[in-house]
Amino acid sequence: MRILGIDPGSRFTGFGVIEVQGDRARCIAHGVIKTGGKAGGDEFLQRLGIIFSGIRDVIESHKPDQVAVESVFLSRNPDSALKLGQARGAALCAAIEQGLPVSEYSPRSVKQAIVGSGSADKVQVKHMVAVLLQVRGEISEDAADALAVALCHQHTQETVQRMRKLPG
Amino acid sequence: MRILGIDPGSRFTGFGVIEVQGDRARCIAHGVIKTGGKAGGDEFLQRLGIIFSGIRDVIESHKPDQVAVESVFLSRNPDSALKLGQARGAALCAAIEQGLPVSEYSPRSVKQAIVGSGSADKVQVKHMVAVLLQVRGEISEDAADALAVALCHQHTQETVQRMRKLPG
Repeated sequence: MRILGIDPGSRFTGFGVIEVQGDRARCIAHGVIKTGGKAGGDEFLQRLGIIFSGIRDVIESHKPDQVAVESVFLSRNPDSALKLGQARGAALCAAIEQGLPVSEYSPRSVKQAIVGSGSADKVQVKHMVAVLLQVRGEISEDAADALAVALCHQHTQETVQRMRKLPG
Repeated sequence: MRILGIDPGSRFTGFGVIEVQGDRARCIAHGVIKTGGKAGGDEFLQRLGIIFSGIRDVIESHKPDQVAVESVFLSRNPDSALKLGQARGAALCAAIEQGLPVSEYSPRSVKQAIVGSGSADKVQVKHMVAVLLQVRGEISEDAADALAVALCHQHTQETVQRMRKLPG
């Protein structure tokens, strides 16, 4: 099974595809869709197109079966929330359009699944993602967050399957 | 030329298609894409899919050449802004995906174009939309807002063309 993790943002959208076999996962691809610098108006609309077609390309190239995304932590101001929302809408529609099931996980549960602590920092998450997936080269922060949510989805699926096997 | 106006919202997304011939415009279609009641998590993701495919269906059925949307007035709280942003991202991506040019207009400039005053209320906008487009049946508020932004785009295009014709 292949899982695509997405970390949407209006300037940088991280993505990571993992392949799961049994209880093992390996990284198939990771990267960042960059939409350029600060933008207003028309330029912002172009960004949505870049995010949408970027995620669609990743889906076409790597054929994930499921998609996972972090739910949003809401301490942002309305302007950031609106921009992030539009970027998220663009990224998610590229997945929904392909009929892929999308699951959401809170930042806390992603950290808990990867590092074992809901208050882990970004460096710890990135380190554990590299170790768990045996990635050697450099991983950008956004791609690491995307791989982390994909791994969190894998762990959750495993737990669900294990619970199904328990004698009722 | 056909213009699709969109008034995106996470629960109700209004749309309106107008056909412009010379300086006349008539209404081709209008309506509201309803995504259901209050929703969280997975249900909210389903809504984005409903908005995206709803706008895509409108585009396929009515073949607009251009798209117009209201820019967002930012006095909302971050949670509303995020939801609205995602709905907007979904609606706009359906247009951007088809390669349609999208223009944004502030709520104030839409009211100014339709009623002649930037502080007009919703009832006045709806009334003028019905008069200008000679729509007889009932128009919902969201569809009226969508038709209004389409008309605003028409007026703006006309002004641009008139200015181009002025002796330099």
